[in-house]
Amino acid sequence: MLKLYYAPGSCALATHLVLSEVGADYEAIRVDFAAGQQRSPEYLAVNPKGRVPALVTDRGVLTENPAVLLYLAQIFPSAGLAPLDDPFALAEVQSFNSYLCSTVHVAHAHGSRGARWVDSQAALDDMKRKVPQTMTDCFTLIESEYLRGPWVMGEQYTICDPYLYTITRWLERDGVDRARFPKVAAHHDRIEARPAVARALAEHFAGT
Amino acid sequence: MLKLYYAPGSCALATHLVLSEVGADYEAIRVDFAAGQQRSPEYLAVNPKGRVPALVTDRGVLTENPAVLLYLAQIFPSAGLAPLDDPFALAEVQSFNSYLCSTVHVAHAHGSRGARWVDSQAALDDMKRKVPQTMTDCFTLIESEYLRGPWVMGEQYTICDPYLYTITRWLERDGVDRARFPKVAAHHDRIEARPAVARALAEHFAGT
Repeated sequence: MLKLYYAPGSCALATHLVLSEVGADYEAIRVDFAAGQQRSPEYLAVNPKGRVPALVTDRGVLTENPAVLLYLAQIFPSAGLAPLDDPFALAEVQSFNSYLCSTVHVAHAHGSRGARWVDSQAALDDMKRKVPQTMTDCFTLIESEYLRGPWVMGEQYTICDPYLYTITRWLERDGVDRARFPKVAAHHDRIEARPAVARALAEHFAGT
Repeated sequence: MLKLYYAPGSCALATHLVLSEVGADYEAIRVDFAAGQQRSPEYLAVNPKGRVPALVTDRGVLTENPAVLLYLAQIFPSAGLAPLDDPFALAEVQSFNSYLCSTVHVAHAHGSRGARWVDSQAALDDMKRKVPQTMTDCFTLIESEYLRGPWVMGEQYTICDPYLYTITRWLERDGVDRARFPKVAAHHDRIEARPAVARALAEHFAGT
């Protein structure tokens, strides 16, 4: 059985949604970020980076959303969540998810995780101030260039969709109104209408 | 024919090295970052993100190293640069490259590209000050947890290796002595001994 380590509302939601979507047999284990559990020796033995998601498989632990999501698409091929037989189309999927991971998530992280990169309060405040602008820039590009509709890659629902949805949810906290991006807003609502998503959201946020 | 847009010494070096390694028929086109060419309308038509690498294929343009490198491994399978038939091993490859892209490259970027995330000179200085520490943290983890040796994934040379080498090259500029990481330092030297790497380096840095 797969085990997902997650924190509610973190980027691990993307993995949680995909586990639900493919009908995997899995256990979701909450990591208490408020209590610093991600830095505990027990959790660092699972993921030395002290981050989520971490997916425990029978072969070992996998981390980083773009890798974990591709893995799930590969081991549950009948779910059709990635164009596994088309290297170019698959690269487009991985490119989009890599952009989310390395640029969009990073832009967001400057709002609440700035201590990764600076020490002074003044610099933390400066970082936080720029988040609405950087997130707006990222979503302007997603809206105009990358979200084909109805799903990110067009007609096929892929591992890009729950990941984009996960980060779209952060916009409000980042001081950005997602209604400014009509395609992104419609995508957000379309995702929430999926039964597998509703089930995973209920489990993910239970008790929060 | 494939076309690679690159800037010397940028992360596009990883793609350049892999193009050489697989024996691809390609043209390498330099983007003049000092002149701001990456923000020109011509280049933004190639890659709306204004970044490198961008790989032009007969199906369209691909961006983001983890995606581009996987694509090259897939379309040149005889080069054996990724475990394409083993979803778990492939996820380990993608996980490592995703970590380089979203954490290590980002840590480095706070040294010279801090204006992405802050506006004040004081905050830029604060970011720059922390780069040696964050890069040391990243490479401590790579040394202890992820670099199996002789190559990143063990006996098989993969798309992780030229990418790690590309970022290892940045350590000196980041104020970190790579000799502190014996496995990383040996990996760096081992890569430079490969003929395909020497050829690509000569082309990549010609005239710089």
